[in-house]
Amino acid sequence: MAGRRGISAMAQKQLLVLVDLDGVMADFDGHFLTKWKQTYPEEPFIALEDRKTFYLVDQYETLKEGLKPKIKSVYQSKGFFRELPPIAGACDALKEMNEMEGVKVFICSSPLFFYKYSSTEKFAWVEHYLGADWINRTILTRDKTIVNGHILIDDNVKIKGAVDCPSWEHVVFTAHYNKHMNLRGKKRLDNWTDGSWRDLIMDFKKRL
Amino acid sequence: MAGRRGISAMAQKQLLVLVDLDGVMADFDGHFLTKWKQTYPEEPFIALEDRKTFYLVDQYETLKEGLKPKIKSVYQSKGFFRELPPIAGACDALKEMNEMEGVKVFICSSPLFFYKYSSTEKFAWVEHYLGADWINRTILTRDKTIVNGHILIDDNVKIKGAVDCPSWEHVVFTAHYNKHMNLRGKKRLDNWTDGSWRDLIMDFKKRL
Repeated sequence: MAGRRGISAMAQKQLLVLVDLDGVMADFDGHFLTKWKQTYPEEPFIALEDRKTFYLVDQYETLKEGLKPKIKSVYQSKGFFRELPPIAGACDALKEMNEMEGVKVFICSSPLFFYKYSSTEKFAWVEHYLGADWINRTILTRDKTIVNGHILIDDNVKIKGAVDCPSWEHVVFTAHYNKHMNLRGKKRLDNWTDGSWRDLIMDFKKRL
Repeated sequence: MAGRRGISAMAQKQLLVLVDLDGVMADFDGHFLTKWKQTYPEEPFIALEDRKTFYLVDQYETLKEGLKPKIKSVYQSKGFFRELPPIAGACDALKEMNEMEGVKVFICSSPLFFYKYSSTEKFAWVEHYLGADWINRTILTRDKTIVNGHILIDDNVKIKGAVDCPSWEHVVFTAHYNKHMNLRGKKRLDNWTDGSWRDLIMDFKKRL
């Protein structure tokens, strides 16, 4: 069976780490709030520390009905994804991780269903902050379950897709909205600045 | 080991088929030739039946030195990927394949390193010819070896990447340039019109 052969060969050689972009490398929520206040100063907003849902719109609609089109107009606008500020320490950590012996890192990011700007701008973000060679290590997919890897570092607590049991173990990157969520045994990575990502990677490497 | 669990669960449930876009679904070579003759009528060209290499530029440079910038200007231009004509029967075959019981189909396509137009336009092509729901089944990646699947239907005879032995079996889609190549035991799919793709899929399903 071709599948088993693939995983087995992969496992012997290297740790494949998949890293999400929005909310893990790039500050989607923070940038949204800045743009939201600028664009719709008359509308209510949710402070970052009060965010509770993965999708912004789910929580904003509890503040006031009918905000959805305005919310979409912000994150679907040209330049929104390109201008996302990097999360502290993320780019340096990824570059260092990819230099570790026996570790390969890929960006694994979901473009918006309204893909017009986000697909190109995600590549542009990666090129700008990580370097052009990372274009070759970027995967855009709305279904992450069919991507092969040992770890997926992602802030979205629920990741579903065509494959019920993906090859990767999901490590939840801590965000304001998920910090109080029950992860049902999943590991967390809280930030890129306190060095704990190195322990996480070494732990996975030991288990190969 | 998470990986084995993933593949095993996947194998029991469904056949995952990955299908390349350029040269398999969309006629890259034919469209290039049309645009090349229109844009540079004074330059030599290679008839489709005389094509011999995967990368156009490798063969065009044997005709005349220094053609590379002109060649790139054609396929890197805005609209080139969006305007690719579908290969005969490809879209109907894919829609039918995805409706087969126990079969899931994903588009697996490599954007150009010059991603500016190709990344967005590949999604636009898929949306136009297959339907908006196929945006959710499209993976853009320059490394296909880390995508999980049982089959990858791709015209590129040599597919390399981070994983030495990918989970998929590579089925080579016949193109003018690869029809005389030695596939070293790999299966071929010659076209989408004679119905042989159904036998191929059924054969893989039996082996799950």
